Amino acid sequence: MSELEKRVRKKKLLDRVMKAEDTIKFFENGMDLGWSGFTPVGYPKKVPIALADYVEENNLQGKLRFNLFIGASVGAETEDRWASLDMIDRRWPYNTGKNIQKGINSGRIRFGSKHLSMFAQDLKYGFFTKDKGGKLDIGIIEASGITEDGGIILAGSVGTAPEIVDIADKLIIEVNTKMPSFEGMHDVLITDMPPHRKPYLITNVADRIGTTYIPCDHDKIVAIVESDLLDNGRELTEPDDLSNTIAGHIMDFFKNEVKVGRLPENLFPLQSGVGNIANAIVGGFVHGDFQNLNVYTEVLQDTMLDLFDSGKLDFASATSLSLSPKGFKRFFDKFDEYKERIVLRPQQISNNPEVIRRLGCIGMNTPVEFDIYAHANSENVLGTRMINGLGGSGDFERNAYLSIMHAPSCRPSKNDEFGITTVLPKVTHVDHTEHDIDILVTEQGLADLRGLAPKERAKEVIEKCAHPAYKDYLNDYLERATKKGIEKGMGHEPHLLDEVYKMQLNFIENGTMRFWEK
Amino acid sequence: MSELEKRVRKKKLLDRVMKAEDTIKFFENGMDLGWSGFTPVGYPKKVPIALADYVEENNLQGKLRFNLFIGASVGAETEDRWASLDMIDRRWPYNTGKNIQKGINSGRIRFGSKHLSMFAQDLKYGFFTKDKGGKLDIGIIEASGITEDGGIILAGSVGTAPEIVDIADKLIIEVNTKMPSFEGMHDVLITDMPPHRKPYLITNVADRIGTTYIPCDHDKIVAIVESDLLDNGRELTEPDDLSNTIAGHIMDFFKNEVKVGRLPENLFPLQSGVGNIANAIVGGFVHGDFQNLNVYTEVLQDTMLDLFDSGKLDFASATSLSLSPKGFKRFFDKFDEYKERIVLRPQQISNNPEVIRRLGCIGMNTPVEFDIYAHANSENVLGTRMINGLGGSGDFERNAYLSIMHAPSCRPSKNDEFGITTVLPKVTHVDHTEHDIDILVTEQGLADLRGLAPKERAKEVIEKCAHPAYKDYLNDYLERATKKGIEKGMGHEPHLLDEVYKMQLNFIENGTMRFWEK
Repeated sequence: MSELEKRVRKKKLLDRVMKAEDTIKFFENGMDLGWSGFTPVGYPKKVPIALADYVEENNLQGKLRFNLFIGASVGAETEDRWASLDMIDRRWPYNTGKNIQKGINSGRIRFGSKHLSMFAQDLKYGFFTKDKGGKLDIGIIEASGITEDGGIILAGSVGTAPEIVDIADKLIIEVNTKMPSFEGMHDVLITDMPPHRKPYLITNVADRIGTTYIPCDHDKIVAIVESDLLDNGRELTEPDDLSNTIAGHIMDFFKNEVKVGRLPENLFPLQSGVGNIANAIVGGFVHGDFQNLNVYTEVLQDTMLDLFDSGKLDFASATSLSLSPKGFKRFFDKFDEYKERIVLRPQQISNNPEVIRRLGCIGMNTPVEFDIYAHANSENVLGTRMINGLGGSGDFERNAYLSIMHAPSCRPSKNDEFGITTVLPKVTHVDHTEHDIDILVTEQGLADLRGLAPKERAKEVIEKCAHPAYKDYLNDYLERATKKGIEKGMGHEPHLLDEVYKMQLNFIENGTMRFWEK
Repeated sequence: MSELEKRVRKKKLLDRVMKAEDTIKFFENGMDLGWSGFTPVGYPKKVPIALADYVEENNLQGKLRFNLFIGASVGAETEDRWASLDMIDRRWPYNTGKNIQKGINSGRIRFGSKHLSMFAQDLKYGFFTKDKGGKLDIGIIEASGITEDGGIILAGSVGTAPEIVDIADKLIIEVNTKMPSFEGMHDVLITDMPPHRKPYLITNVADRIGTTYIPCDHDKIVAIVESDLLDNGRELTEPDDLSNTIAGHIMDFFKNEVKVGRLPENLFPLQSGVGNIANAIVGGFVHGDFQNLNVYTEVLQDTMLDLFDSGKLDFASATSLSLSPKGFKRFFDKFDEYKERIVLRPQQISNNPEVIRRLGCIGMNTPVEFDIYAHANSENVLGTRMINGLGGSGDFERNAYLSIMHAPSCRPSKNDEFGITTVLPKVTHVDHTEHDIDILVTEQGLADLRGLAPKERAKEVIEKCAHPAYKDYLNDYLERATKKGIEKGMGHEPHLLDEVYKMQLNFIENGTMRFWEK
């Protein structure tokens, strides 16, 4: 019996096994497609690559375009290559890759971002394809296998796969035989429609409330494709001094919160975003004193394996094993051990306000920039250029017990080593409001904003977080805005509207936000 | 037996009955106070008024100042009078009244706003008074009575009273004997601390999960004051043509959503904000065809009584009976009938993301203004002058099944009948992001933004919602911004940063947002 035959336990479905090239006939220009996959793990590979090859070989660029609904990012060899072949019309709610970002910012790809928990739910509600009846034409799902009843056992992520399986007219399943089966790691629940939605009875990060597979009407499965391609996961660089300094501020803060009794000794369940600062924070825990930690987060990066290995992490809940190829190797080497301490949930649940608020998660995410009153921009540089999307940052920042955002205080521009400040009078795009953020951190320090009124908040943010190259101007701005605002009887959250984006405008014009004599 | 003796069923507590004037000794400058009350119902009256009289008579203005933590607004005869006597240092998270707004915007009162569900929770977490141990010095609560065990039976609202009773060192209870007892209408649950928070098992608007009183350590009660003062509730004007037109657009939209199967015939539980448009919408339901409606909202305004009387409303859940004096008279006249169909919950639960998302509420709120990409400003005029606070609008807009915001397309200024547009290139303050709003409505029309990318959204908002006096400029702005953005490879959500607040700046300078030749 081949590995594929072992994995597909509903034998009737073996009739539908075919090569990736043979699925091309199912696709038509303008279709709405849903893919499994999340940051980029558990996404289909064989079929998207076959379609790209087909377009390339037949010069169909711009003639076979699709609307892509995928939980979060997928590997560059699929989505980004599609973008380079002009195969994407719409894309929701997150993206990664140079070509797709070029497509989005040149107006060729219609992209929209959304809180990740809400994307999955709204997809199921039919909001994204409402003009065509609310369904998807084809769902393409990477799986570890298929159960005796036709249920789909996922691979390294859950993401929006349950909702896609639920609402797609046709399904293509890529069964990956190159990886071990992830069976037993998933806890799947399909979003119910109101008024019949039920409470998510998760009161501990390890609680299970669903099935280990996606229940599936197997008559919808039109093809099963064997895949031998591995996930093209992100490599992370070693944390640098700056990230470690930020992580240090946060560790000190936690220690003090434990001391004054606002956090228990093992803290509350941690959520940690993606990127180098997040990695440094997890590194901080690896070498720190906190024991019996729990994680309720969106993605698990490589350093989370170190945290498991350190004995300090009891259990982790996420929607994706966002590991690098090297991380996956480590993971597979101790597969049975890790497996018992990880549960993968749909993003609708990993990021759900209900569970995040109940568990009292500690949310930690990196924005592009933030302002003195604590509004943060996560996705649009200069208010206009999309990077990736806000991801799950809003789900966690709004609902966490402690909402922390961290970033370097400034970044170099082409002509100024301190050309771009993270701390601004006013951000050009708001993804997180002043009502949603408790703590801001840069390598300069940590601003605890809980209970502070706007002008107090601004002083604290400038003092603790701003880079010295920008402190004088920011203080001067705040002082002048406050004086004028109070004079006019509108000084609650003072701003000088005619000056508010002066630093950003100078950056556009002269390549640095410092418009004054240095 | 006096009415007060009847109401205070724990007889031992009758020893603590005193006059309002005699409670003055408990208060000291700089104290943290929590009051019951919400939009302005169920707030303490006798003690705050006695304190104000005391300050006035003894010329203690500015010498007896307090930090006030109250669920939402309270009557002008208390809070606003306190502001006029300079008795308020800090105030969270909502305010109403000319004097308090003057104090806030002149920098004398340190005010902060917060999502109302989160305020109650964060107060219990000790975040607002963390530098003083996380407690409140004194809680002042209006009650209908006290149970045999010392539990507090509230009056016309719940708000943050449970958390205040829980964390206050001392309690003063105003037992109102002028109103009937509201016993049985409340469903009280005190916020647990994580990791021990439990699911809120509400799957129908009428579900009860708590007690009819606030459990209370009665040793904390230092005074019981009899009150004969009624709530100073808001009077609403009759809906005007404009509000009715907006309500009409929304009714048509609902009818179509039912027709295409995205809403059931009795819709989902309705949340409706405060003000005249909200009132007109409820009026639309009174005269409309929808039957067996349910309401899961923050406050019940007078028209909700009409909706009950029409036979079309089955049940309503809220945190406050935000009725006018006339409304209360109606309410008391048919008290037993209404009582069976209303439950009052803590604002932490009436506005909780968990319940709102599960029930699939339809959220409808009025912002100050919104922009072409669907960000909305709920609280800061011109980005700087605080009105009331964002209230519960963020709790509902973020988590509702359908997130609707409605406003007139423009308002007159002193020198221009169309001087202030609601639809702007960019709002000066963001309380609700583009990720949180599905539908925008003005008297001009309704823009359904579900599934649209930013530039599509902008076209729809301008076409459907903008006032004709502003359409040409907005279209021109969008066109120029798009052209420039795409040229520069940053055209995802196009803006001209040097022009983005030109209308607002012209308003500050010349009293109208129309800076062009009319």
